[in-house]
Amino acid sequence: MLICTHCGRKYPAEFLRCPICNEPLQLPYFEGKIKKGNKVWKRFADFYPFTLLLKNSLGEGDTPLLYLPKLSQQLKINIYAKNETQNPTWSFKDRGTFVAMQYVLNISRRVGTVSTGNMGASVAAYAAHLGVKSYILVSKEIPEEKLAPIGIYGSEILRVMGDYGELYYKSIEVGKEKGIYFINSDNPFRVEGYKSIAYELAEKIDGDYVIIPTSSGGLFRGIHKGYVELKRSDLIEDIPELICAQAAGCSPIYNAFSQGKERIERVEHPNTIAHAIRNPYPPSGDAVLKILKEGNHCEIAEDHEILEAQKELAKDGLFVQPASAVSLAVVKKLVAQEKIEKGTKVILVLTGAGLKYIPPIRINIRDCSINDLSRCFE
Amino acid sequence: MLICTHCGRKYPAEFLRCPICNEPLQLPYFEGKIKKGNKVWKRFADFYPFTLLLKNSLGEGDTPLLYLPKLSQQLKINIYAKNETQNPTWSFKDRGTFVAMQYVLNISRRVGTVSTGNMGASVAAYAAHLGVKSYILVSKEIPEEKLAPIGIYGSEILRVMGDYGELYYKSIEVGKEKGIYFINSDNPFRVEGYKSIAYELAEKIDGDYVIIPTSSGGLFRGIHKGYVELKRSDLIEDIPELICAQAAGCSPIYNAFSQGKERIERVEHPNTIAHAIRNPYPPSGDAVLKILKEGNHCEIAEDHEILEAQKELAKDGLFVQPASAVSLAVVKKLVAQEKIEKGTKVILVLTGAGLKYIPPIRINIRDCSINDLSRCFE
Repeated sequence: MLICTHCGRKYPAEFLRCPICNEPLQLPYFEGKIKKGNKVWKRFADFYPFTLLLKNSLGEGDTPLLYLPKLSQQLKINIYAKNETQNPTWSFKDRGTFVAMQYVLNISRRVGTVSTGNMGASVAAYAAHLGVKSYILVSKEIPEEKLAPIGIYGSEILRVMGDYGELYYKSIEVGKEKGIYFINSDNPFRVEGYKSIAYELAEKIDGDYVIIPTSSGGLFRGIHKGYVELKRSDLIEDIPELICAQAAGCSPIYNAFSQGKERIERVEHPNTIAHAIRNPYPPSGDAVLKILKEGNHCEIAEDHEILEAQKELAKDGLFVQPASAVSLAVVKKLVAQEKIEKGTKVILVLTGAGLKYIPPIRINIRDCSINDLSRCFE
Repeated sequence: MLICTHCGRKYPAEFLRCPICNEPLQLPYFEGKIKKGNKVWKRFADFYPFTLLLKNSLGEGDTPLLYLPKLSQQLKINIYAKNETQNPTWSFKDRGTFVAMQYVLNISRRVGTVSTGNMGASVAAYAAHLGVKSYILVSKEIPEEKLAPIGIYGSEILRVMGDYGELYYKSIEVGKEKGIYFINSDNPFRVEGYKSIAYELAEKIDGDYVIIPTSSGGLFRGIHKGYVELKRSDLIEDIPELICAQAAGCSPIYNAFSQGKERIERVEHPNTIAHAIRNPYPPSGDAVLKILKEGNHCEIAEDHEILEAQKELAKDGLFVQPASAVSLAVVKKLVAQEKIEKGTKVILVLTGAGLKYIPPIRINIRDCSINDLSRCFE
C-alpha cells in the first residue's frame, strides 16, 4: 500500500503518483527492532514490506563512514563523510535500485528509468544481474562518454529529444501502457532503499546535521523516512537536522524554501557543473519542501564553490563527483553564517564517485629524465 | 624483519629487495586466530606485525563476494567474483596502500610510488588523508585523462622519460637518498595488505581456483601468503589452486612458466588493452614463478578475449577494467581445455573499476521524440 505524501490518500503498490494531487507516493512508516547481521538489509529487515533477497544484491550498502580530520579542524566542527561512492556502480543509486528491483521482479520482466548518468548505470547493472530487460531514457544533451558505462551492461538506451523534466511523467505513462515499470528517481521503492543510509548512520553516530545533495528529492525523502522510522521505533532520541544542498545554477527547492512558497517552480535554464543534481523540476520537490518546514534547512552553492569543495575533499582522500561536493560547499557557507555551530557533528552524504565525471582539473606535472631523477626531488 | 623470497636471508624492515639476489623481500608467515569484528583488519589482527589503526583507513577491504549465476550456468562451473572495485579509490591497491602507509608513518613524512594509474590514485588518496607528502612517478605514455584522478588528491606528479621497468629500481634508489619511502607494486607491506583478500575469501567460501590478474606479482604473492598463513594456522584444510592471469600482449610470467624457466625475461614490446597489467619486467616475476611451481598455474588471454570477457561480466552486473576481465577470459580457456573441471568453485579477483579506463564500446542508441515515445518501445 502506498500513501500520498501530500493528501494522505491510499493507493495500491503499482501506483507511482497520486492521481489527485500529482504528488509522490510513499510506503507507510515501518517500526521494528534491529537484528544481527553483517548487511543492513538483514539488520533492518523489520523495516521492509517484503524480504530483501541477498541473492539479488550486487553488494550495495554498508558503506564506510569516515571522520575527516583536516576539514574538521579547519571548520571547527566534526565532519564525517558517508562514502556512497563505494557502491557497486559507485553511487548511492544502487541502494534504491536493489530494493526497487525486488518489487519489479514480482510484476514485470521489463524495467526502465530516466537518467542523467548514475541512475542509468545502476538500473542497467541490476537489470543485467537479474536477467530483466532494461530501457534507459537519456536526454539529448548527455555527453557520449557517459553512455558507455550504461551501455556496457546491455541496456537499451533511448536518447529522447524533448523536455527532460516532462520525460519523468511521460515515461511512467508510456511504461504503464507497455508493461515497463519505471523506477525513476523518487519511485516509492527506490526511496525505501535510500532510507538505509539513515539506518547505517544512526548505528554509528548521533549526528547533528546531515547534508544531502538534492535533485529529484528521492534521496532526501529516503533519509528522512529512515530517521522517522528509527525515532518511532525508539531506536534514536532525536532526528538530526537535514540540510538540502542544491547547486545555485539549478535550485528549485531552495528558491521555493527561501521565498516561503508551498510549491516548487520549474527552473527555466538550469546550468551547473553538478550534472547529477541538475533537475529543473524535481518530482519530489514539494514533498521535500514539506519536510524542510519541519525544522530542516536548504542552502545552495555556486559552481566555483563546488569545484573548490571537490578539491578539498580530495585533500582528505575522497574523490567525489561535483554533485557530491555540493555538500561540503554548503557546510562551509552554513558555518560562516553560524547556522551550523562550532563543535557539532556534521555528516556529508557523498553520493557518487569522482570518476563519473571529471571536470577540468589543473594539475602540476613535472617532466623528469630517469637518469636525472634525483634532481626532480629537490 | 624481512626475508628474501629467493634465498631466505633476513634483513631489517627498511630494506626493499635482497641486495644479494635482487629478489623481493617479504614479512615472515604469521599464524593466529580469527577475532570478532566487522573489519578484516580487526578480525585478522593476529596476522599483522603492527596494529592497523582504523583511523588511518579510508574504508578499504571487506568487499562483496558475488555469485554469478549466468556465467556459472554457461560455463558449468560455479563462478564467484571478489569485487575489489568497491574500494575507496576503486581498486584492490587500497588494501596494500593502507597497510604500507601504517609502516610509512613510522619512518617518513614523504612517500612515493611508480604507477600506471590505479596505484598512483591509491597512494595519492591515502597520503592526502594522512597528511603525508606524495610523489607519483608516471610514464611518459600515460594518457592525460588518467592524471586528473591522481592529481586531484594533491600529489606531485612526475612524468618520467626513460625505461619504465627500470624506474621501479631507480625510484627505490633515489628514494633512499632523498628520504622518500617508495611503496611500489610489490613492496613487502603492500603485499601484507593484499593477503587480506585470501582471508575474506576463506571466511566465505572453500574455493577450488582463484584467478588473479597479474602484473608486478604483488597481488598474486599477497593472496598466496594469506592462504599459506591460514593453512599454517589450521583455519583452512586446503589452499585453492591459484591461477596467474596475464594479457597475451605482455606475459613475462606466462612465458617463463610455459617454457619451464626459473627466471622471467623482459617483454620487449608490451602491447595490450589491459593497461593495468602491462608490466614488461615484473619485479616479483621470479617469486610468482616459484609459487606457480608448487602446483599452481598460469594462462594468458588475447585483447579481443579480454574485451569480450569485460562485456560478459557487465551482463552479470559488473563493470570492470580490462585488466580485471582477464580473469574471466582465462577461465573460459581453462574450462575449454578441461583444466578447470565442471562443477568446481572458481573465484575471479576483479581488481579495478571499469570507469578507470573505458575502452571504445559499441552501444546501440536509439533517438526518440518525447511526443512519440511509446513507439520507441515497439
